[in-house]
Amino acid sequence: MSGLLFIVSAPSGAGKTTLVRHLLTQMASLSLSISTTTRVPRVGEVDGRDYHFTDEASFRARIEAGDFLEWAKVHGNYYGTSRRRIEEAGRKGLDTLLEIDWQGAEQVRKAMPNTSIGIFVLPPSLEALADRLAGRGTDSPEVIQKRLAAAREEMRHAQEFEYVIINDVLETALDNLIAIVHAARLTYARQQQRHGELFTALNAASLPF
Amino acid sequence: MSGLLFIVSAPSGAGKTTLVRHLLTQMASLSLSISTTTRVPRVGEVDGRDYHFTDEASFRARIEAGDFLEWAKVHGNYYGTSRRRIEEAGRKGLDTLLEIDWQGAEQVRKAMPNTSIGIFVLPPSLEALADRLAGRGTDSPEVIQKRLAAAREEMRHAQEFEYVIINDVLETALDNLIAIVHAARLTYARQQQRHGELFTALNAASLPF
Repeated sequence: MSGLLFIVSAPSGAGKTTLVRHLLTQMASLSLSISTTTRVPRVGEVDGRDYHFTDEASFRARIEAGDFLEWAKVHGNYYGTSRRRIEEAGRKGLDTLLEIDWQGAEQVRKAMPNTSIGIFVLPPSLEALADRLAGRGTDSPEVIQKRLAAAREEMRHAQEFEYVIINDVLETALDNLIAIVHAARLTYARQQQRHGELFTALNAASLPF
Repeated sequence: MSGLLFIVSAPSGAGKTTLVRHLLTQMASLSLSISTTTRVPRVGEVDGRDYHFTDEASFRARIEAGDFLEWAKVHGNYYGTSRRRIEEAGRKGLDTLLEIDWQGAEQVRKAMPNTSIGIFVLPPSLEALADRLAGRGTDSPEVIQKRLAAAREEMRHAQEFEYVIINDVLETALDNLIAIVHAARLTYARQQQRHGELFTALNAASLPF
């Protein structure tokens, strides 16, 4: 039994994190993958809850050891997903949700083509996104420029994802996300895993009638 | 804009018709395809509601003319899906649901590989199905035997379908069916059709920021 990997990507400002948080409260059978990062913790962030914080030397050693299912360097910081934790969740029959960027998504898709499902979250319009990214008040023009460039780059990869959710009204976007997770559990392969006895009987040479 | 085709197949006795009827009352945006058949109408069946009834000569002429998206001969009677009606629904942006057998499903899958989604409905156990098929009371042993053979043959093709629904509790099966339809409307291709302006901006050489 291997779990499904739901990859959720979005440009910064599309509301991905809020959407995912709501999804997780509604679907106890989904486990969120906590990324490992070399980024300095922000105020209020807790090690092991928001991220697994580590230093660059340790991170690079783990890259060499093949410890990461995916990793990327963004804005000078490393981010990665522990392969072991994903495999453990899978063994427990839990599906995992990964909040990662397009670079990570590409690596996971290649490593796990049969169990990964890519979902891209878009804002209702690009103008709304630009306003939101620029409008955080205290940031320097350089920081805003970096953020805009990253959003632009991220959205260029939307077409590599199976599903797209337009996050206009949160409730609707959440309904959409739930339907995608729900449907992904109903494919022939997944149902065969879950209902082994029925499918074994079905494919047996002689049916009981 | 082309509509999606949801193909629902099942062995006789799995509860497909009841399930589909409930789905259609909940999703007004889905239109049921009415099959054309040479079978004699049963008591209570209405032409144009349950089937489009026709004679064998007309049916065969329409096969020759390429009028059918799919057709099959089952128990000596012809059944087919009008290509024109599917295309009309598609032009109106309506998705269509087809209740057809594995032979028809195979033809639709080949004709419309990008817009057809196959859903197979299974009973909770094969024993339950056998009991149900045998237990209709007044049927002759020959009729029962024919029905069992058809169910066996039908189920052998379950693995050709993307999705499988186990129809144990009707409400759960209905939730599953709704999630599959819902998710199928959220693929990149479908969202691009529906939100043309956003996607055009997204893929433009220069974003508005």
